[in-house]
Amino acid sequence: MALSPSRTVAELKELRELTGDSEGAQRVAWTETWSTARKWLDKKVSELPVEKTCDAAGNQWFTLPGDSERALLIGGHIDSVPNGGWLDGALNVMAGVEVLRRIAADGTPPVTVRLVNWADEEGARFGRSLFGSSAAAGSMADQDELRGRRDADGVSLPEAIARFDVDLATALEAKAELASAAAYLELHIEQGPVLESLGLPLGVVLGTFGVERHQVTFRGQAAHAGSTPMDKRRDALAGAARLELEIREIAKRAGEGAVCTMGGVVTRPGIVTSVVETAECLLDQRHLDATKLAEMLSNAEAASRRFAEEESIDVEWERIWNIEPILFDEALIELADEAVREVAGSSHRLPSGPLHDAAEVARAGVPTVMLFVQSLRGLSHTKLEDTEEEHLELSVQALDRLADKAMAQVAAG
Amino acid sequence: MALSPSRTVAELKELRELTGDSEGAQRVAWTETWSTARKWLDKKVSELPVEKTCDAAGNQWFTLPGDSERALLIGGHIDSVPNGGWLDGALNVMAGVEVLRRIAADGTPPVTVRLVNWADEEGARFGRSLFGSSAAAGSMADQDELRGRRDADGVSLPEAIARFDVDLATALEAKAELASAAAYLELHIEQGPVLESLGLPLGVVLGTFGVERHQVTFRGQAAHAGSTPMDKRRDALAGAARLELEIREIAKRAGEGAVCTMGGVVTRPGIVTSVVETAECLLDQRHLDATKLAEMLSNAEAASRRFAEEESIDVEWERIWNIEPILFDEALIELADEAVREVAGSSHRLPSGPLHDAAEVARAGVPTVMLFVQSLRGLSHTKLEDTEEEHLELSVQALDRLADKAMAQVAAG
Repeated sequence: MALSPSRTVAELKELRELTGDSEGAQRVAWTETWSTARKWLDKKVSELPVEKTCDAAGNQWFTLPGDSERALLIGGHIDSVPNGGWLDGALNVMAGVEVLRRIAADGTPPVTVRLVNWADEEGARFGRSLFGSSAAAGSMADQDELRGRRDADGVSLPEAIARFDVDLATALEAKAELASAAAYLELHIEQGPVLESLGLPLGVVLGTFGVERHQVTFRGQAAHAGSTPMDKRRDALAGAARLELEIREIAKRAGEGAVCTMGGVVTRPGIVTSVVETAECLLDQRHLDATKLAEMLSNAEAASRRFAEEESIDVEWERIWNIEPILFDEALIELADEAVREVAGSSHRLPSGPLHDAAEVARAGVPTVMLFVQSLRGLSHTKLEDTEEEHLELSVQALDRLADKAMAQVAAG
Repeated sequence: MALSPSRTVAELKELRELTGDSEGAQRVAWTETWSTARKWLDKKVSELPVEKTCDAAGNQWFTLPGDSERALLIGGHIDSVPNGGWLDGALNVMAGVEVLRRIAADGTPPVTVRLVNWADEEGARFGRSLFGSSAAAGSMADQDELRGRRDADGVSLPEAIARFDVDLATALEAKAELASAAAYLELHIEQGPVLESLGLPLGVVLGTFGVERHQVTFRGQAAHAGSTPMDKRRDALAGAARLELEIREIAKRAGEGAVCTMGGVVTRPGIVTSVVETAECLLDQRHLDATKLAEMLSNAEAASRRFAEEESIDVEWERIWNIEPILFDEALIELADEAVREVAGSSHRLPSGPLHDAAEVARAGVPTVMLFVQSLRGLSHTKLEDTEEEHLELSVQALDRLADKAMAQVAAG
């Protein structure tokens, strides 16, 4: 039986009919619709000679035994955000199903091949993303905090996951699943505009960005807009404006892949008749290189202090969240590049802005790589999310080629 | 009987005790507390040979007849904002009372002298400032709209003013009061930092600023902060930031007295993970010179369009409100300057950012001038509003001198 990329597209449409509505995909983790999708997936692989298991964190595993117990993993997530797109997560899983079919049809593979459907990548219901993969990676450390989480209807996280036989007390037992893992592959839509702007269907992901996220608050003095001369003002908004423009220069100096975003400013008192007293800025900085990320942060801090001094205002930084960059495996990146070039003619290497389950697996020490397929207009987390079918089919072919190359490499030891 | 500036300070404190509380002055127009203040004022002038009247707009008049019917007016307002200061408005009225006492003690003046306590300068309860003075000036034109206004408790404006025998249908009959007016004087706290920064107690006001008030909306494209490269962004906040910095240069180029303020920015979606799609900016521009004000506006518009083009975003301007500059009388400005120099040694001429009843009187064609007395820290509309007592006393003296000079000028024809 040959690989059928068009079947993957057809199955994704079938899943969309089954679990979506006029507002988009509704496969939010730990819900009935998600359960429907998981059962549907289970049926899709029922004709294959695979062992079906569910681990302690709710991750679904489909294991095709090979000559060696060392395992090549292919992963994805069938859960979506509410009113989500048809491809984010599900493409990865269904392309994995198709590759598993092709490998199984070719007879016993040299190494064990396992498809994993990670539980709750999106964190849409309880605000905790990468649930299943972080449990399997052993990096989940916020169980105590998660016990108190409730959804918008007041249902607690422990209650919701118990319906799927998952318990925070034992979720980390999922770590056992990665013991035999020798490589991990994940395909995903890009969720950004880079491949589309380059006119390329496919790219190879170098890793996921490190992120530094801060609230930067400038404090000046409210003063009457009519009676306060320009040179007597202590305008907090001036600090925010100068930082907004400076972070673009900071990103430029930090080289390719660097991004800095001021995602919002809240001004107080925020009325037309007063100079702004406080300006609270949300700052997000990302880089694949930890040293350069640290440099970007310290450059932004230094700039903000200089602006504050020059404007006679104060500035205060408060970290909201941060994560180190996670680099993918160099050898697998080379194989992925080969696979993409064979299928699409040319390839492009790019970092991933969003996090993915692959980042958790890589942090756990498993050699990892991801493929990106072009997103139209860079849109995701909306029903408008889309990718040309031709590109979807190329992505299934590329994952298949990559799986073959990775199996050979794992088998070679 | 000699002028007693210290009595004015004592009476202001008496009024504060009578009509204020721990949060500040509570003499909001059309309330019981305001009524208490008006009756108290009435008593204060009861020993003077003045005619007491109330016009069709609720303004209180105290008329000291002179040899000529041509009248010198001295004005102020005893109403305050809620939790207001002890001086804003009341200083003008009580200094006027003291000047009236001194003139009356000197015998029949050469011209008629009238003290007016304008009704509802602040507009605190119904959002309509300069109520009484705009009726007397004949510029009130929003009676139909005012009929629908209600306060926070649902009481309508017509209902509230009816308790003071004022009716929107007849309020403009107050115009008759200005028929004989030959000059108008008003003393006020500066409500800004200029005199304090110059170390001067008193200043002469050149007029009230023209104001151009706009909402400027920049529209770009929301995009993922992690997956959208810097050169692919259409960041609405960049337009807002550049305009915020540019309006300072525009004000600088427009010369002394020009002010431009971005009082607030609202960013949407306003989250840390997204480039800003829309930035709504509140822009306030003021100048004493109508031509320069128009130039400042057109410079800001042109700059915003240039920024929009360079940032690949859109920009839209919507006027919120505007008013022409109102210039005070040149001859009275000279007299006021003399009076201030005689009392305080040196004077300073400055525009007024806030509007005042004097602006309405000037618009009606009555030669007008204002005196400013220093405000500590520029604060007003708060219980923290204050002025050194020594400066308050100097301000009463300066108003007295100015009244004498103005009477002589009016008498001379």
